[in-house]
Amino acid sequence: MSQAATPLPQFTHAQSLYAEGLALDCGAVVAPLAVAWRGYGRLNAERSNAILICHALTGDQYVAEPHPVTGKPGWWENIVGPGKPIDTDRFYVVCANVLGGCMGSSGPPEEMTDAEGRGQGRPWGTEFPSVTIRDMVRAQKKLMDELGIIRWLAVVGGSMGGMQVLEWAATYPDAVFAAAPIACAAHHSAQNIAFHEVGRAAIHGDPDWKGGRYWEDAGRIPARGLAVARMVAHITYLSEQALTRKFGRRLRGASALTFLEDVFEVESYLRHQGSTFIRRFDANSYLTITRAMDFFDLAAEQGGDLAAVFRGTPTRFFVASFSSDWLFPTSESRALVRALNAAAANVSFVEIASDKGHDAFLLDEPDFHRALGGFLRGAAERVGV
Amino acid sequence: MSQAATPLPQFTHAQSLYAEGLALDCGAVVAPLAVAWRGYGRLNAERSNAILICHALTGDQYVAEPHPVTGKPGWWENIVGPGKPIDTDRFYVVCANVLGGCMGSSGPPEEMTDAEGRGQGRPWGTEFPSVTIRDMVRAQKKLMDELGIIRWLAVVGGSMGGMQVLEWAATYPDAVFAAAPIACAAHHSAQNIAFHEVGRAAIHGDPDWKGGRYWEDAGRIPARGLAVARMVAHITYLSEQALTRKFGRRLRGASALTFLEDVFEVESYLRHQGSTFIRRFDANSYLTITRAMDFFDLAAEQGGDLAAVFRGTPTRFFVASFSSDWLFPTSESRALVRALNAAAANVSFVEIASDKGHDAFLLDEPDFHRALGGFLRGAAERVGV
Repeated sequence: MSQAATPLPQFTHAQSLYAEGLALDCGAVVAPLAVAWRGYGRLNAERSNAILICHALTGDQYVAEPHPVTGKPGWWENIVGPGKPIDTDRFYVVCANVLGGCMGSSGPPEEMTDAEGRGQGRPWGTEFPSVTIRDMVRAQKKLMDELGIIRWLAVVGGSMGGMQVLEWAATYPDAVFAAAPIACAAHHSAQNIAFHEVGRAAIHGDPDWKGGRYWEDAGRIPARGLAVARMVAHITYLSEQALTRKFGRRLRGASALTFLEDVFEVESYLRHQGSTFIRRFDANSYLTITRAMDFFDLAAEQGGDLAAVFRGTPTRFFVASFSSDWLFPTSESRALVRALNAAAANVSFVEIASDKGHDAFLLDEPDFHRALGGFLRGAAERVGV
Repeated sequence: MSQAATPLPQFTHAQSLYAEGLALDCGAVVAPLAVAWRGYGRLNAERSNAILICHALTGDQYVAEPHPVTGKPGWWENIVGPGKPIDTDRFYVVCANVLGGCMGSSGPPEEMTDAEGRGQGRPWGTEFPSVTIRDMVRAQKKLMDELGIIRWLAVVGGSMGGMQVLEWAATYPDAVFAAAPIACAAHHSAQNIAFHEVGRAAIHGDPDWKGGRYWEDAGRIPARGLAVARMVAHITYLSEQALTRKFGRRLRGASALTFLEDVFEVESYLRHQGSTFIRRFDANSYLTITRAMDFFDLAAEQGGDLAAVFRGTPTRFFVASFSSDWLFPTSESRALVRALNAAAANVSFVEIASDKGHDAFLLDEPDFHRALGGFLRGAAERVGV
């Protein structure tokens, strides 16, 4: 919690605790506030080379190293690392598990505390307060202060990570030199809210959810509901082209007309996605975080005037979308760019031609990697990093 | 079962039984075969004015009269009736509940029979054989024969109804003077299969489904799973524009940040849709019928050559799509039209400008109604009706 942290060693990680807690938009206070995070690279003496990465709905802080639960590679290893677009030889890269998450930051699976911060001997569960994207950003600001960083060289993120990037630039404009909101929007659409609602209904409908108190039954979790939630979300992450190319109408095995069997490749794939996900994600966190996304509407406090949110901003922006992304379509990035232009902001925009859908921001898209890397190098040169 | 039926009175309805049963694509035989149906208008002496309407996934035979379970108006009353585009003053209109359905035709909730047609004293449930769209059409053909109709003036349907229309024209070309496949495709896409799979997973995951034997527990049905299935399907029926216009980001009531509450209008709407649906639909039928749609691939037996399916067809076609339909996008109707052109078929095509999504085929779309009505009048004049 010191404001004068020493330069941090490579591969730093910690669960930082802030005794004073965090006051949330809903009025509740979470105290102490826990922020679990990972750092890659080395913070320079001027503390001017720090890049914050904000993760998406089901991401976490394990950006560029194997995941401790699944053992799979970090979720953005193709972008973050030595010599990569987010170059850890040059930049100090930080990623924190979001508030409301389930990888060590304060959230539904963590121990519940009372108003004085005393542990209650059981998880928060559904009694964890409602959080907003801005609450997530405020929690990250605590970590920033602890690290003694005055201004992020850049804040970067895709999907819900991009919502946090926008919220960072809106709430703490002087703390963000460059911002890269990717494959996102300034508000969550009705269709996206509706798909989230299906996922939540699936979790609520699973009797193993037990009104959110599944932690009372050691080992039992609402696995079926969470898997269905993941399945429907996963479809929205892929384009029709990507689904067709990967699975098309190929039948599995010969007995094409067996009732209730795994017949189409796509079904088996989705079932697999659903079942690995439940091992690493908490159902109540899924409810909390999807709700935060659904509430996101950056211009709401300005009566819908998005340009007013960014008027006079010192931040430079890099907005990127993907042509086949139908969850956060290019039209929504264009609306954001129009607002930034109207606010006289420094903004560049690129639509990447890709048939991989929303997931493209996580995948091997060389044009995207080149554009993002170039933007960050330009920002670094500006501040002399 | 007589081939020499007398002219039928207005508002005829029946559950026709065919003792010889029906041999299905999967090799099973359902005997006796039940086909529940409704008729509107009057069959003329030449039996030349009959129009068959094929219903969609969750539709049924109650096209133009109140539904016996919900009391709501018939699902196509704005198109079918006296003086309407499908004019019951001029045409005799027939609609049968599909094979595998749950409104009286042979299907999972009906009494199981053995190979000799003897009742087993319990429903088929998941032991009802796997059916195809072609099986559905073959069952309707039994009804056609019973009514003494040699050729339908037209076969008309949207969505899965359109799949049946195409299958009718492919399987019984001489029995179909005119065909109107609406908002459909010649095969089911990977994305559509994936959305169906989510719905099925939600049903399978509901413990009240009991492996399909929920009928053993009087009164208990897999309501939550079926509701989630309906919710996800319903989103695919609407366009983003329609969802936004109807519900947008309007919050319900004041407490916008209450955890796990009905907050967004869209959520409440979807929950309502899910809950009325379960009163009238059977979960095992939902599994059976979605699977039939997923298997639909009209060109499969021709090695993917859709034109070969229709080469030399005597049927005249009217293909219609809706601009904001992303479940069965216009591109798939265009592919169908290209194949029909390549087969030298008589085909007209219209894309209706609408922002109502797939559901548009059921809604008040005057341009569509005019185009369909005109096509049917033209066909009627050709055959002198």
